[in-house]
Amino acid sequence: MHILVLGAAGMVGRKLVERLVRDGRLGKRDITRMTLQDVVASQPPKTSIPVKVVTSDFADPGTAAPLVAERPDVIFHLAAIVSGEAEAEFDKGYRINLDGTRHLIDAIRAVGDDYKPRLVFTSSIAVFGAPFPDKIGDEFLSAPLTSYGTQKAICELLISDYTRKGMFDGVSIRLPTICVRPGAPNKAASGFFSNIIREPLAGKEAVLPVSEDVMHWHATPRSAVGFLIHAATMDTAAMGPRRALSMPGLAATVGEQIAALERVAGKNVVARIKREPDQTIIGIVSGWPRNFATDRALKLGFTTAEKTFDDIIRIHIEDELGGKFVG
Amino acid sequence: MHILVLGAAGMVGRKLVERLVRDGRLGKRDITRMTLQDVVASQPPKTSIPVKVVTSDFADPGTAAPLVAERPDVIFHLAAIVSGEAEAEFDKGYRINLDGTRHLIDAIRAVGDDYKPRLVFTSSIAVFGAPFPDKIGDEFLSAPLTSYGTQKAICELLISDYTRKGMFDGVSIRLPTICVRPGAPNKAASGFFSNIIREPLAGKEAVLPVSEDVMHWHATPRSAVGFLIHAATMDTAAMGPRRALSMPGLAATVGEQIAALERVAGKNVVARIKREPDQTIIGIVSGWPRNFATDRALKLGFTTAEKTFDDIIRIHIEDELGGKFVG
Repeated sequence: MHILVLGAAGMVGRKLVERLVRDGRLGKRDITRMTLQDVVASQPPKTSIPVKVVTSDFADPGTAAPLVAERPDVIFHLAAIVSGEAEAEFDKGYRINLDGTRHLIDAIRAVGDDYKPRLVFTSSIAVFGAPFPDKIGDEFLSAPLTSYGTQKAICELLISDYTRKGMFDGVSIRLPTICVRPGAPNKAASGFFSNIIREPLAGKEAVLPVSEDVMHWHATPRSAVGFLIHAATMDTAAMGPRRALSMPGLAATVGEQIAALERVAGKNVVARIKREPDQTIIGIVSGWPRNFATDRALKLGFTTAEKTFDDIIRIHIEDELGGKFVG
Repeated sequence: MHILVLGAAGMVGRKLVERLVRDGRLGKRDITRMTLQDVVASQPPKTSIPVKVVTSDFADPGTAAPLVAERPDVIFHLAAIVSGEAEAEFDKGYRINLDGTRHLIDAIRAVGDDYKPRLVFTSSIAVFGAPFPDKIGDEFLSAPLTSYGTQKAICELLISDYTRKGMFDGVSIRLPTICVRPGAPNKAASGFFSNIIREPLAGKEAVLPVSEDVMHWHATPRSAVGFLIHAATMDTAAMGPRRALSMPGLAATVGEQIAALERVAGKNVVARIKREPDQTIIGIVSGWPRNFATDRALKLGFTTAEKTFDDIIRIHIEDELGGKFVG
């Protein structure tokens, strides 16, 4: 089968490609071909599978058509600019996160009636805005408080409608905040949730800009890749017309994160977290989801790789640090 | 004050204009100027207020800019194609109901930072799709089962986001099904809810394509105009960032509609309703909302003109038939 990954050079995209290459198959079918698109050049993975790397602007009206003209069986759509950037650059956010997605889905539709690929779209819990119930259930409204969340919510609606009309077979998965996010910080305001784990484990200081009672919804990069694979291979008949799903995750307060870090890595590591309250970040985070009841996703077979925040830290040490950290 | 009405020649648009002309004011301010846009030529109302009639395609990227360049204080956005047409003509629906709205809001934004009009957008209960709770509350998700509902839900999200960013002061109101809808039937699949009242009162037969236990959510044209006026004049500070509101209405089964018609107009009138089940319409209607709990709208001061379905019929006889019907 032929797989197209849009946004393949991003953090989740790279990890998805690594996993696909390692497995050599998706579900029950062998992968015979991969196309990896991003605005920055993707590093081609080491594999015997034929891989084409395409460097292009996802928002360009001409980008999607030639990619879908080759009729990939599964399309992973991970192309986006992140929340902080979409909030700061209004036009750029709408151009990439909304118009880009419309160009893509219209291009799929234009291929013709007999082409109906599985489209897996990475949405976000940013489609929800405060005030919230204790746990956000599957019937809670999308009332985003950011342009990024608005763009994701709109794409979910489009993907459900195009799917209902038989133009492709779409699934939108709302990823929890990815933790521990590897590599350098990006412009996401949620960066500190990962920074306070990743940096101390690397022997560096990290700034905690909010109080320890802030609760948030997390999943590891390993789980995120698992969600994508499941969304690409599951039987979508059981979903019905509501094609957007909040993914399972783990609710933890910052205090619980820090306690887990101390259990896994010790007091010296935890001492590298510096408390520097930042009113701007405190304000942004106060409007974010804290906890979910993801009954539909669980029933449809989505599972996480972690059961506790200790697991989240251990998975980071295992997958990113070769099992070692600076004690 | 200067008022712009987009979609002024439609049924609700005409009734809104009649009311504005009759009142001569909107809230506490005199109306000094009106601009009435539609794709078909609006009949200019008889009034001493200066009125400009503009005939243009709302979906044309160049339509909105010159209209908003004149800085209307209040913009009523009622331009749309209806549900049946948007479902049958996919591209046309997205072009008018979604792209047209984006051209409008981007044109308002382009006027500049000191221009911040009140924008009142007519959304619809079609943003909701089955399965539903007994009553749809203010936190229930938008999961439309039509392209029309999808387009309305997307516009609601855009209007909330642009409002949050300070680009205008937007309010989206989800109108119940308008009953009794005067004049000739349009392409809306909900037409029969009005047909079975309007046609018999005019001495004509009407077809009932569904069973009498079908429940639906209704409001009179008089109430719809009242909602629009209130949305244009209310203090929006109390709304917070969630700028879309389900409007109050009246839940009634088709059987209750018919019983009310008999009470108000007698057995002879009711005998003009012919039962001809239509599986297509039965299927469409089964996915429609039946009943609502509109706490937010009621708290924000939205009210209906009717308390019972008998009132709905009496208001139709009073407002459309000069107090008389064919008994």
